[in-house]
Amino acid sequence: MDEHFLFYVPPEQIKHDRLQFTEDEAHHIARVLRKQPGDVVQVTDGVGNTMDVKLIVVDKKKVAGEVVATYITPAEPDRIMALGVIRQRERLEFAIEKAVELGVTKIVLVHSDHAGRMELKPKRIDKTMIAAIKQSRRPWLPAWEERDSFYEVLSEYRDSCEVVMAHPAEGTYEWQGDDSPLLLMVGPEGGFSPKEVEQALASGVKIVSLGQKRLRTETAVCVMLALASYR
Amino acid sequence: MDEHFLFYVPPEQIKHDRLQFTEDEAHHIARVLRKQPGDVVQVTDGVGNTMDVKLIVVDKKKVAGEVVATYITPAEPDRIMALGVIRQRERLEFAIEKAVELGVTKIVLVHSDHAGRMELKPKRIDKTMIAAIKQSRRPWLPAWEERDSFYEVLSEYRDSCEVVMAHPAEGTYEWQGDDSPLLLMVGPEGGFSPKEVEQALASGVKIVSLGQKRLRTETAVCVMLALASYR
Repeated sequence: MDEHFLFYVPPEQIKHDRLQFTEDEAHHIARVLRKQPGDVVQVTDGVGNTMDVKLIVVDKKKVAGEVVATYITPAEPDRIMALGVIRQRERLEFAIEKAVELGVTKIVLVHSDHAGRMELKPKRIDKTMIAAIKQSRRPWLPAWEERDSFYEVLSEYRDSCEVVMAHPAEGTYEWQGDDSPLLLMVGPEGGFSPKEVEQALASGVKIVSLGQKRLRTETAVCVMLALASYR
Repeated sequence: MDEHFLFYVPPEQIKHDRLQFTEDEAHHIARVLRKQPGDVVQVTDGVGNTMDVKLIVVDKKKVAGEVVATYITPAEPDRIMALGVIRQRERLEFAIEKAVELGVTKIVLVHSDHAGRMELKPKRIDKTMIAAIKQSRRPWLPAWEERDSFYEVLSEYRDSCEVVMAHPAEGTYEWQGDDSPLLLMVGPEGGFSPKEVEQALASGVKIVSLGQKRLRTETAVCVMLALASYR
């Protein structure tokens, strides 16, 4: 069995242990890897299952198979990343890729005060996230959503999560290192507005300073998740 | 004064408090920001000095100025990153950018067993590093060098540094959180070879596992530096 690659098939495309691959995955399996019927590949449905799938049909237009074994990975602790939208699309996608690799369970893309209103491209975001779970062999596909302000995000999550904001300020935050739900807030280039900081403090948000150097948004994403996950 | 931008001028181009900007920086100052003689900008020489520089000449071909104040930033603790060369040049440059942002003092690019021999482009690496110190307002420009194997790197640094290797294995490493010299080893895509791991263990290298998920090289760079710097 080829354990190097993990393929993704949405759960709704798996019925009675039979599944058909999406066009992109079919191309990769049939044309790039030149798999044959009878070969076994690994597949995740993004909701915790990793499956050994024996290929039945491998042709130009269709690749389909049968699940022969399923391994279940327990759900991960809630790590929600609320991220100010970055104008440079490449950096935004990089931030999303890194967040997924480092175990985020949901990404909230925020049109914050200093971010301005940039139109998101949902298909590209989905694609970035799927590529990241495949690459890191992670059988959970995080969800993502879009919000108009950090305040909206706070109202929604402050009761169910500990909220930690990356912002240059006095004081050090002690990471708990347990599995309780966390909402991590990272600003766009230009950081949080004074109003956003004020609203956060009024909501009991903890502030963590990432040092004197000015970090790019995607770097702050990596640091926050590293500190939340590896303590 | 415009504190948003930090410009870089190599120390050899600063004489008796007078300096001339490189072509790229001159273009940015004269054409993009449209600065005038008399305006003050911030400049670093990459060896710890941040200077306020009053512009004297601003024209198409030449931008020069005079240092009116100097601020000294103490040297940072030794954080050397030995990094297996990544074949995708974009990801290699990204790893370098992130390492610089997160406070590395030297980067050693290693043609390791699983990396193969890829020709480096020194000018692009210099450019990436200069852009990263400017962006993060960091007045120290890290050095970089190229080595043919991790073993060579180990022989060179194991006596002067604590060496920590990112490798999936049992056991957890306790980061010290002090300023003693550290050499961090991160493998290329495909990781370290069994021989490289064996040589490292024989040299007393500490191993840190970054969890069950497979991290890309540039992600491991961010995590290692975050853990080394923010404990």
